[in-house]
Amino acid sequence: MRQSKLFGTTNKDSRQYDSINATLLQKAGFIDKTMAGVYAFLPLGTRVLQKIENIIREEMNELGSEIFMPAIAPKEIWEQSGRLDSVDVLFKVVGANAASRAKNDAEYVLNCTHEDVVTPIAKKFNLSYKDLPFAVYQIQTKFRNEARPKSGLLRCREFRMKDLYSFHADEADLLKFYEKAKVAYTKVFARLGLGQDTVIALASGGDFTEGFSHEFQTKCETGEDIIFYSKKLDIAYNREVAPAKSASLINSQEKELPMEDVKGEGITGVEDLTKYLKISVEKTTKTIIFETETGQVIAAAIRGDYDINEEKLKKIVGCKSLKLASEKVVKKVTGAEVGYAGFLNLDSSVRVYMDDSVSGRKNFECGANRTNYHTINVNFGRDLDVPKEFYDFKVPREGDCHPQTGEQYEVFRASEVGNIFPLNTKFTKAFDYYFSDASGQQQIVYMGSYGIGSSRVMGVLVEKFNDERGIIWPENVAPFRIHLLQVGKSEPVAQNAEKLYDKLLAQGFEVLFDDRINVSAGEKFADADLIGIPWRLVVSEKTQDKVEVKNRTAKEVELLTVEQLLKKLRK
Amino acid sequence: MRQSKLFGTTNKDSRQYDSINATLLQKAGFIDKTMAGVYAFLPLGTRVLQKIENIIREEMNELGSEIFMPAIAPKEIWEQSGRLDSVDVLFKVVGANAASRAKNDAEYVLNCTHEDVVTPIAKKFNLSYKDLPFAVYQIQTKFRNEARPKSGLLRCREFRMKDLYSFHADEADLLKFYEKAKVAYTKVFARLGLGQDTVIALASGGDFTEGFSHEFQTKCETGEDIIFYSKKLDIAYNREVAPAKSASLINSQEKELPMEDVKGEGITGVEDLTKYLKISVEKTTKTIIFETETGQVIAAAIRGDYDINEEKLKKIVGCKSLKLASEKVVKKVTGAEVGYAGFLNLDSSVRVYMDDSVSGRKNFECGANRTNYHTINVNFGRDLDVPKEFYDFKVPREGDCHPQTGEQYEVFRASEVGNIFPLNTKFTKAFDYYFSDASGQQQIVYMGSYGIGSSRVMGVLVEKFNDERGIIWPENVAPFRIHLLQVGKSEPVAQNAEKLYDKLLAQGFEVLFDDRINVSAGEKFADADLIGIPWRLVVSEKTQDKVEVKNRTAKEVELLTVEQLLKKLRK
Repeated sequence: MRQSKLFGTTNKDSRQYDSINATLLQKAGFIDKTMAGVYAFLPLGTRVLQKIENIIREEMNELGSEIFMPAIAPKEIWEQSGRLDSVDVLFKVVGANAASRAKNDAEYVLNCTHEDVVTPIAKKFNLSYKDLPFAVYQIQTKFRNEARPKSGLLRCREFRMKDLYSFHADEADLLKFYEKAKVAYTKVFARLGLGQDTVIALASGGDFTEGFSHEFQTKCETGEDIIFYSKKLDIAYNREVAPAKSASLINSQEKELPMEDVKGEGITGVEDLTKYLKISVEKTTKTIIFETETGQVIAAAIRGDYDINEEKLKKIVGCKSLKLASEKVVKKVTGAEVGYAGFLNLDSSVRVYMDDSVSGRKNFECGANRTNYHTINVNFGRDLDVPKEFYDFKVPREGDCHPQTGEQYEVFRASEVGNIFPLNTKFTKAFDYYFSDASGQQQIVYMGSYGIGSSRVMGVLVEKFNDERGIIWPENVAPFRIHLLQVGKSEPVAQNAEKLYDKLLAQGFEVLFDDRINVSAGEKFADADLIGIPWRLVVSEKTQDKVEVKNRTAKEVELLTVEQLLKKLRK
Repeated sequence: MRQSKLFGTTNKDSRQYDSINATLLQKAGFIDKTMAGVYAFLPLGTRVLQKIENIIREEMNELGSEIFMPAIAPKEIWEQSGRLDSVDVLFKVVGANAASRAKNDAEYVLNCTHEDVVTPIAKKFNLSYKDLPFAVYQIQTKFRNEARPKSGLLRCREFRMKDLYSFHADEADLLKFYEKAKVAYTKVFARLGLGQDTVIALASGGDFTEGFSHEFQTKCETGEDIIFYSKKLDIAYNREVAPAKSASLINSQEKELPMEDVKGEGITGVEDLTKYLKISVEKTTKTIIFETETGQVIAAAIRGDYDINEEKLKKIVGCKSLKLASEKVVKKVTGAEVGYAGFLNLDSSVRVYMDDSVSGRKNFECGANRTNYHTINVNFGRDLDVPKEFYDFKVPREGDCHPQTGEQYEVFRASEVGNIFPLNTKFTKAFDYYFSDASGQQQIVYMGSYGIGSSRVMGVLVEKFNDERGIIWPENVAPFRIHLLQVGKSEPVAQNAEKLYDKLLAQGFEVLFDDRINVSAGEKFADADLIGIPWRLVVSEKTQDKVEVKNRTAKEVELLTVEQLLKKLRK
């Protein structure tokens, strides 16, 4: 393609957006923002998106058949799965004006995911054990009513996604397919240039499995997720589900000091407390009073520098929901205003759960259950019994260990590029999707779902592969493989450049040809670096009948004959 | 692909839907109805859709660059073009539940077309005469709030579309490009197998041009449009804009009879009138009283078997809008209740327009301007002067002639497969899209838009290419080129079929392999005819090491060696 005819030029705008991908993709003319979280893909961006989606398509064809489901759906199916009112990013569609509503006043759902659509379709066709297992996928536009779209293509209100759904006779078969899907996903990310840095991380199983779902997480400094990796076990966890033990802080030299209640009027937050008491944050303790759905009151105590992961805590308590106890309840069980709860002399009706981070300390602080008072220099064994069990309901922190191995986690930021869910029977039950087994009995179908956000992947690629001059596309997804620059507008230079362009096209290479006149050499070089096509070729007065060749990642240029160049490119 | 693994089987359901394409595409397992006017494309349907879209893509790449615009857009841009409240098929998008609206209570437009989106994008990049002309296109899902979706893929609430937009320095350049687009479209329809039967028909220019827009109309018995074709001029018109003259009915033998007013209490409609007066419908006359936007009252008279085309009439009158006059106004100008208007003794303030169909008759009827009375045996020259001018504001009927040539039109039904519009400055003015010309002056940009409904094309193909046994896909868009049937399950047959399947795949052919066991030969043949893949190959006990070959359109089978088969397929 001739750059003189390319729609969507690079721009000199020095604006920095909230992420590298938003800045570079807009600056280099790949995307254009229509509104918050909604982008148009310009020709360069469309090419990259299509390449990403074609790689995904090729690998998904090994798992199932491509279909194409509608973006809008009747509300009834979302009601049937119980999600119409509960999915808080769901959009609906209605007539935009009085004339439109007069024609048809119905409301439809704008799908943010397609489990609710695909399950009834599958049920229409495949009802025998002979039909199972099977899988279908689509590459579609999805819509999410995000409160705060951000980070360019990473969190959008409208985005592209490949979603695959698999259907099975039993859980074992689902899990077998699930492993196959992991292999296919691994191939996809390898081909996208992300293989080396993408790990499979355990994540929440949501309400469809006691176990985990799995996220494909690409190491990336600007990633929004934090991954805890155990080298010994070779297991990666999303922080939200990582089991963690805090390192013991006990200093054997430290002498136990007399316990006392200290007055600190209105001092409640951890930060204020450390300043006021002049102790390190690790000596402080948070004791949070919760109520369960049955009204049971519990206290959860954790070291002051940790936060509580309520999902973990719910599993430990064995309840469905937890909410912070009301002021009234707090006052009743602690005898104090909110902010002074501790576990030393709580009402005996309150069951106390201690995170392991509470242990392993000497002379620590905890709330005095007395308004404006904190107890300091508390010590296990002396001031209270060591509890029968310490738990893990912490949001892990760097430095924490895997509880099984005691090994410190490797912690890194990452960006999610795919996820797979063992949905089990959540949707098949909602839609009464049963099959006849070999003996004619009706059995529930098991189901899995498998997503890759193709536009998001484009954003992650840019977050990961860039330098101060621009984007550095991996070869497989670059909008073009070659960026040919004509530098200088003399007749011989133009002729050489045109000849090389024709030759490269004839050989089947994808070439962006910077044939612009009245654009300086410096500007052409800067644009080439910004756009980030792998191979930059320069034809100028200097190169004569040779070509100056430079890979986007290389520091040095090479001067090659056309034949040498073709040999290099064919490698 | 192995048919045993194909998702979306043919079904024995004998249901007839409202159109051939709806019936056959669902019966053969190409599409599945999610709700009225909204379909999921199953694997076979997805393959056909992608082939259609790739053909369109390849030809559009000759005209412009592919981009991908969002489906949702801010309401403000639709307000700016003045279309937010006037486009009566427009949808909007809002949070689907309280939780979603609490996160983000905004409303967006769900685009039914993208002029309002593309114009502001184009304006961001291309502002100099050096950038013009240029064109961009996308292949996208569109949404229309149709009151009554119908005819399978022909009129949907959600559908696929290629839309291209071109931008120009002046109208002449737009028209030049417009002709290029016609050529590209012609190539597209030729490759889709519709070339021979697709004509370019003139259609309404809407509010953006005094001239015409152009529709690509495919001859098709079940088509929803009626085309009037003038062979002498080689021009096709959509009925809505076809100029037409009715054939004269004067019988020179017929004597002029005495004019008289006949009482017919409550007789007003043409049908009742012909029965009551015992005259042919061609002797009756409709005189309709209208008011223009300025309150001017006019009467339009037309032969009883014609309807009035208000668009034509508005142009003749030179007004912007026409509405039926109120009862009060009718009474004032005719002196009678509604239903008895005629042109003989109207209030002189009323300007009378007569369609040419009113002339060329003897002894005709018209309203008496007297409640319950009609005048019969009216004759021009005797009872009233021949008016200075007869007009053409009829909806043409079969048998009508082109006014210039006097030649009777060839009239046929057709289905619209594409359309192109010279938008001129409608949208560029709305979005203030000006460019700097060579002398630095600001000039308005001219614009055209060019659509092909790719999913609609799939429906039209089926409407056109079918027989009593099923679909007959043109080779270029068939889901597979070859349908290989294994008939019989003996070891040698299975081996021969598998070997042939592998060989065909290895040679790059697309093959659907009916490897199903426990399915009768009859059922396999019926399914093959229903699905409509061009080449049916049968391997059975009978064929030994040869192959039975039949084209979907052929009556006879051939028995060929594999080598002969490959030679035939390569042709």
